[in-house]
Amino acid sequence: VAPRITDCPLARAVERIGEWPTMELLHEALDGCSRFSDFQVHLQTETDVLRSRLYKLVDSGLMTLRGDDEYVPTELGRSLRPVIIMLAAWGNHQLRPPERSMILVDAATGVEVEPVVVDRDTGLRVDTGDFVFTAGPGASKAMRTRYALGAAVCE
Amino acid sequence: VAPRITDCPLARAVERIGEWPTMELLHEALDGCSRFSDFQVHLQTETDVLRSRLYKLVDSGLMTLRGDDEYVPTELGRSLRPVIIMLAAWGNHQLRPPERSMILVDAATGVEVEPVVVDRDTGLRVDTGDFVFTAGPGASKAMRTRYALGAAVCE
Repeated sequence: VAPRITDCPLARAVERIGEWPTMELLHEALDGCSRFSDFQVHLQTETDVLRSRLYKLVDSGLMTLRGDDEYVPTELGRSLRPVIIMLAAWGNHQLRPPERSMILVDAATGVEVEPVVVDRDTGLRVDTGDFVFTAGPGASKAMRTRYALGAAVCE
Repeated sequence: VAPRITDCPLARAVERIGEWPTMELLHEALDGCSRFSDFQVHLQTETDVLRSRLYKLVDSGLMTLRGDDEYVPTELGRSLRPVIIMLAAWGNHQLRPPERSMILVDAATGVEVEPVVVDRDTGLRVDTGDFVFTAGPGASKAMRTRYALGAAVCE
């Protein structure tokens, strides 16, 4: 049996974030919600479940507790905003523009934007076949083996 | 009690994707894995759990079954690649470049890229305070109320 690939940043992100509803809570928090009661009104989650999810967010360093009722995103939590933006964009892609219920806009003009993923330096779209995942300098043996034949190791 | 916001594209994305490990399976599939045994070797997931996760991916339209052992991403599944890229980038951001085990590179040159989220038309970064979520044309009354005071409804 091949060794399990445990050093994958995607797996690490997934583990740290925990359950998906985490993203909805962070999204609310980034929009300015902080009180337990606000999260509860917006998400209509049972008290115990909501409390447990917020605790997990604090545990994993994505939010911090202020006083005894306010949950505020940390820097690490804030740095998930690009993921939230791309998730919401993916949800919106299944709809025509007039059907969209929540959109990302330029705060000054109100004009809707269409988020895409590019390389910071070149501005080129990186969600194409021209860009591939591969083993990085810190890769384990398992990760190196996985990518030894380029991206085609499974084919 | 305010009505629950059910038309949020983020909530819809989260519901459709289901569990987080979905992303790891899709990532493997986008790298060229398709056979059940390949997923199992790479992710070392128990047979029943893996089978159930792959079935759910097929159910939700993100993958399709080819023959009786191959799972291939659909167009909808492929369209999650930008989310996967941003999740992996977030995982990598917690590490210095020499520590990174899996990186996104230009397939032709092998040079690592740094994925960021921009507006397709203007190329401006949209993960800043200059861009905010707001109610779109298809918003429910609940969504409209949530954003009635701009993004500051909770503050």
